[in-house]
Amino acid sequence: MKNYIKADEWNIIEEGFDPHLNKISESIFSLGNGRMGQRANFEETYTGETLPGNYVAGVYYPDKTRVGWWKNGYPEYFAKVLNAANWVGIEVRIADEVLDLATAEVSEFKRVLNMHAGVLERTFTAKLKSGKTVKVKATRFCSIADDEVGAIRYSITPVNFDGKLTLSPFIDGDVKNQDSNYDEKFWTLVSDEIIGTEAYIKLRTKKTEFEVCTGSNIGLYKNSEKLDVKIAEIRKEKFIGQTLTLDVKANEEITLVKIAANLSSENYSKEALLKETKAVIAKATAKGFDTLLKEQKEAWATKWEESDIVIEGDVSAQQAIRFNIFQLFQTYTGKDDRLNIGPKGFTGEKYGGSTYWDTEAYCVPFYLATAPQEVSRNLLIYRHKQLGKAIENAAKLGFKDGAALYPMVTMNGEECHNEWEITFEEIHRNGAIAFAIYNYIRYTGDEAYLAEYGLEVLIGIARFWKQRVNWSSNKQQYVMLGVTGPNEYENNINNNWYTNLLATWCMKYAAEAAGIVKSQQPEKYTSLLESVNFKDHEFADWADIIEKMYYPEDQEKGIFLQQDGYLDKEQILVKDLPASDRPINQKWSWDRILRSCFIKQADVLQGLYFFEEDYDLETIKRNFDFYEPRTVHESSLSPCVHSILAAKLNDEARAYEFYLRTARLDLDDYNNDTEDGLHITSMAGTWMSVVEGFAGMRVRDGKLQFNPFLPTQWKSFAFTIGFRGATLKVNITENGISIKNNNDVDLEIGIRNQIYKLAGNTELEVDNAELV
Amino acid sequence: MKNYIKADEWNIIEEGFDPHLNKISESIFSLGNGRMGQRANFEETYTGETLPGNYVAGVYYPDKTRVGWWKNGYPEYFAKVLNAANWVGIEVRIADEVLDLATAEVSEFKRVLNMHAGVLERTFTAKLKSGKTVKVKATRFCSIADDEVGAIRYSITPVNFDGKLTLSPFIDGDVKNQDSNYDEKFWTLVSDEIIGTEAYIKLRTKKTEFEVCTGSNIGLYKNSEKLDVKIAEIRKEKFIGQTLTLDVKANEEITLVKIAANLSSENYSKEALLKETKAVIAKATAKGFDTLLKEQKEAWATKWEESDIVIEGDVSAQQAIRFNIFQLFQTYTGKDDRLNIGPKGFTGEKYGGSTYWDTEAYCVPFYLATAPQEVSRNLLIYRHKQLGKAIENAAKLGFKDGAALYPMVTMNGEECHNEWEITFEEIHRNGAIAFAIYNYIRYTGDEAYLAEYGLEVLIGIARFWKQRVNWSSNKQQYVMLGVTGPNEYENNINNNWYTNLLATWCMKYAAEAAGIVKSQQPEKYTSLLESVNFKDHEFADWADIIEKMYYPEDQEKGIFLQQDGYLDKEQILVKDLPASDRPINQKWSWDRILRSCFIKQADVLQGLYFFEEDYDLETIKRNFDFYEPRTVHESSLSPCVHSILAAKLNDEARAYEFYLRTARLDLDDYNNDTEDGLHITSMAGTWMSVVEGFAGMRVRDGKLQFNPFLPTQWKSFAFTIGFRGATLKVNITENGISIKNNNDVDLEIGIRNQIYKLAGNTELEVDNAELV
Repeated sequence: MKNYIKADEWNIIEEGFDPHLNKISESIFSLGNGRMGQRANFEETYTGETLPGNYVAGVYYPDKTRVGWWKNGYPEYFAKVLNAANWVGIEVRIADEVLDLATAEVSEFKRVLNMHAGVLERTFTAKLKSGKTVKVKATRFCSIADDEVGAIRYSITPVNFDGKLTLSPFIDGDVKNQDSNYDEKFWTLVSDEIIGTEAYIKLRTKKTEFEVCTGSNIGLYKNSEKLDVKIAEIRKEKFIGQTLTLDVKANEEITLVKIAANLSSENYSKEALLKETKAVIAKATAKGFDTLLKEQKEAWATKWEESDIVIEGDVSAQQAIRFNIFQLFQTYTGKDDRLNIGPKGFTGEKYGGSTYWDTEAYCVPFYLATAPQEVSRNLLIYRHKQLGKAIENAAKLGFKDGAALYPMVTMNGEECHNEWEITFEEIHRNGAIAFAIYNYIRYTGDEAYLAEYGLEVLIGIARFWKQRVNWSSNKQQYVMLGVTGPNEYENNINNNWYTNLLATWCMKYAAEAAGIVKSQQPEKYTSLLESVNFKDHEFADWADIIEKMYYPEDQEKGIFLQQDGYLDKEQILVKDLPASDRPINQKWSWDRILRSCFIKQADVLQGLYFFEEDYDLETIKRNFDFYEPRTVHESSLSPCVHSILAAKLNDEARAYEFYLRTARLDLDDYNNDTEDGLHITSMAGTWMSVVEGFAGMRVRDGKLQFNPFLPTQWKSFAFTIGFRGATLKVNITENGISIKNNNDVDLEIGIRNQIYKLAGNTELEVDNAELV
Repeated sequence: MKNYIKADEWNIIEEGFDPHLNKISESIFSLGNGRMGQRANFEETYTGETLPGNYVAGVYYPDKTRVGWWKNGYPEYFAKVLNAANWVGIEVRIADEVLDLATAEVSEFKRVLNMHAGVLERTFTAKLKSGKTVKVKATRFCSIADDEVGAIRYSITPVNFDGKLTLSPFIDGDVKNQDSNYDEKFWTLVSDEIIGTEAYIKLRTKKTEFEVCTGSNIGLYKNSEKLDVKIAEIRKEKFIGQTLTLDVKANEEITLVKIAANLSSENYSKEALLKETKAVIAKATAKGFDTLLKEQKEAWATKWEESDIVIEGDVSAQQAIRFNIFQLFQTYTGKDDRLNIGPKGFTGEKYGGSTYWDTEAYCVPFYLATAPQEVSRNLLIYRHKQLGKAIENAAKLGFKDGAALYPMVTMNGEECHNEWEITFEEIHRNGAIAFAIYNYIRYTGDEAYLAEYGLEVLIGIARFWKQRVNWSSNKQQYVMLGVTGPNEYENNINNNWYTNLLATWCMKYAAEAAGIVKSQQPEKYTSLLESVNFKDHEFADWADIIEKMYYPEDQEKGIFLQQDGYLDKEQILVKDLPASDRPINQKWSWDRILRSCFIKQADVLQGLYFFEEDYDLETIKRNFDFYEPRTVHESSLSPCVHSILAAKLNDEARAYEFYLRTARLDLDDYNNDTEDGLHITSMAGTWMSVVEGFAGMRVRDGKLQFNPFLPTQWKSFAFTIGFRGATLKVNITENGISIKNNNDVDLEIGIRNQIYKLAGNTELEVDNAELV
């Protein structure tokens, strides 16, 4: 755990330069706009420890992963988000010395990520070996107003010398993924071009043949006045740049503005890509840096109006929750239904930048409440688009007749993880995808989604479960063998309670959804069922399984069993583990972990969270009290579910304790892995802890419900959510809760067990005293 | 299945050249002498389909296998037996045409592997594109009399022309493993040298830094008369050769003799390697080809005297059983206790040439009966030498205090397989290693082995099991979770009956062995227990587990359960599977296989085979009748156990049917995979089917026992075994059994339920009529 980020309500601040922290800061100060992003690598040369990273959404490489033993159905590749062309680079030379913070004497170093504006700023003073000293101020952003554009303003002031200054802005496409399995480079050059201040490089990925054109236009200024300097071209392998040399005087500020664009063949024909990039560059250049910056600030201000959480009385918590919201919006804006949320967003290479069930289980609730409805709808449509591939995935494993198995990890719908115990067995993800449809409709009331997209997906998923269970003549019930639950610290287990429960729930919900579509759009219903070749007996098959499914439980303990053999394991509590054994995923062999009773993340409890209305508080409490002490929370997705359940169980202290475990996970480098990138999807879990946990927000019968408490460490907290046309400001203080409705929509709101009317453009205040 | 090998009692014969069969024949006609070996690649150039293969025992490469996700305790590499320098090559040119059977018109092609002599002979007539025709006769062997030496006699006769003939014998070290994970070559050149007719190349393996020096000496003859021809040197990358050009006349036979040697740094210092190779070459050259060949024939004759099986009335079965015996002795001679038996021997690359539990479970019984006692003893000592590594392997997984886990796959004692479900879980191999000690002592009576080597290994293994089980407070018994049994079509199962049984047996036997050592060599006992830091409570710990172990069974069906969840699986019989679904390991996804009830190889039945004396026939029959119909026998190690058990159950027809499944597995390319190499270890299983199955041979109370039957397809069968100083010829005819004792040792022999005396140098004949 580190603690070097300065507390501030709206800014992430690093003061002083510590090379050992650089890779961590590169992750924390990452920029993104949903379409592209990059780690906070320095513009100028840096020969110290760094993980260079520039990423373009949707552009991936299917890295070969087949080595040694392989079995039928194993995925053929592991998709990698590609490290793309670096457009932020500017080499700086003073006389013949390269400016490099690894060799210079650095002072007054400060890095600030202004989350309200979406801007990264870096200032420092560097004394070179020669004694020459310069001051630098670099300002950079990836525009969310125009998500193909990024811009840099790089100002350098000689402090104690007159002399020659050489600036070489460049675009470097000769980049490599650190996680390349075979140490291969993934890009080939298509074309490059330098035209005066402009430079363009078009690269193609091997195998997938995506093309990305990266362009830039530069402008040079002295004390704000435009300079006209001769430009020398630089060309190296997959690398283009321009060299500008000028004589500078002490205290004259020289500023290089670099406006860049990334366009991909996902959005343009390959033929038009270069031309379109030039057009984007021309338009952005015409606006100029200041206008682009203004647009960026305005766009972010709008986002914050829809999504901000204000915490009073705890600056550190305030900073953390905004950081989480900020990074989620940097990663996914919901504009493009082909994109999704990689667990590390645009901040690193790990997890391949691919889509996991994290999206449905953790991110959908966040976007439902904080962004326009189309954003979460697009996340759902993403899966609908991939239904055909999901049916293919299932067919590869031997399923048939339209059964769909969504992949555990994917870029394009095809499974691309490389562990059978995950790809074949961790099938609960299929349920999470169905649950997200339910959750979306519960929140938005958009039942029409079912006819348009949802039902088709639900039928494919229900068909999978139907084939995946089998009749046990031994038990005279249906069982589900050989699965991995959300607790990945057990593999190939039988009758994972959570998966069994999800499976029958999916069949129930698919049948219910069919009923809704049938009654609302009978023609659509008929044509849809025909198109998926639906057989009469299918509903009955599902009903039979729903009726006769086996769910493991222990009557005596009054708990659901994570799996058939769980109680045969040696029962030890996490508190009795020596500290030197933690985290067990670093200290123990995989063998030992698998055989232990220790749980990586909520499993039975994940089911109780999803389906809380079906269980009384006592049952939830018994299971919580049994499983939580056995849970090591070594997934960043674990604590939020525990926080929400603890809040539900009125254990406010523990709810807050679980919240703390992820609130500053990356800012404080809690797990010593922030340098690899940020835990983007778990950030949504932190948001859930506050909104679903502390504020106890739910949707029931089409109404928002709250069951709030105020953590004793805070003075108040407030958050903004959108709900069925209304934007609500919810404020929780020690006195009670107030909800301001900023729109014309009349609502009914539940607080604890009471329903209140909240007319459009009014505010509802409820004192603690009134709450039962 | 193919059927192109001509039936013959002592020879493997291929007539006519079919390029599509070449890779299969390269495997079948492989040569080896326990120290080195090679596939039956042609000496001359061949541009058709071929899998070049030359191998040197004990010389391996740790190929990188870590790709993508990896977890603590996963092995770092997958050891590969190396494709070593090719010393058999002789390029032949007629005028300017290269002799190449892929482009020539081939007639009178015949390949004969003389198993009695250990010699490969190949004759053919080839008409080149120019119309020039040559007759060739190539004779080759790897000497078992001097296992560093190999020799070739390559005779070529122009049929229809006079002209220039160029012969270029070479040693090619620029070879590659086809199964190289990263397409890397594994050898680097240390030095090379050509001195007249001699050539030497010394190569070093990357990473492991083994050195192998390969040398050759050539002689040229015309109609048996030595020729003195000018030699031109050839040098290419890791390749040396000599070119001899001469003018030939039609019908003059030109013969090139090439005597070669392979010496490795496993047996000599690296500095001395070249010098020693020269000495070996000098000695072998002095002997000459004919003497070397004579020694080879004599050495093989001796082997056959100790191990032959004679089958009357079925030439095809006769050929097959000799082929199996021959290949086993080509692979392992037992001279070196650092060597072992790779599942493909010297006939291919697959399975890395590494040691598996096949050795202990299947090969030890063969060598016990057919080779001097030291041969199987050396196989045992091999594991004793690796005890330290086995303790390290266990420690990597979290076991301690001297617990030993032998690897699933190894070259040097270190685990080098790359699937956690195998390395971590398929731990029954540890039991097979203990069982082999028991089996060795049961057969030989050599209890002194325990004090010297055996007990130390048994203690390490027992300690592992002690730590590997856990107390189930649920069952109030000890359980063993997360294992893979011999049936690798289930992974990570709980309470595999076979493994649970082996575990407690190992603890019982370790305690019993300790008692034997204590009473026979009390001082040795004390010092041994001290050296392994044995604690007083350990025997009691074992006894507690032995007493309270849980074994899954189904009372109603009267069967032992392969694992806790086996009866929850959908129960289908193999006979009800459509033919198009077989073999399931090619037709089904791994997911589907894992969830099915289908069994790859004997599992519960393997336990009933090992410990048959503990179970009544009815119990064995119930389990056999339950499991066999669910067994797909997709391991070549499966049918033999079934054959032996069927024989025990007096189901002679089925015993013979199971025998047939592996008897000609490779000769008839039953599984379409002979081209990859031969199934060496399963050949021992075929031997077991005959000797333990048909002849019903056992050792009980220190006496040999027979319970024979004659397959109706045969007239008689006879085999030779060594037993406690005696060499016995056992002959089973339709009339009864006769056993001839060729030594001075007096024995008692059990036949069915009767004990007979068999004095030294006498013969015992028992008619069927006498047998109860």
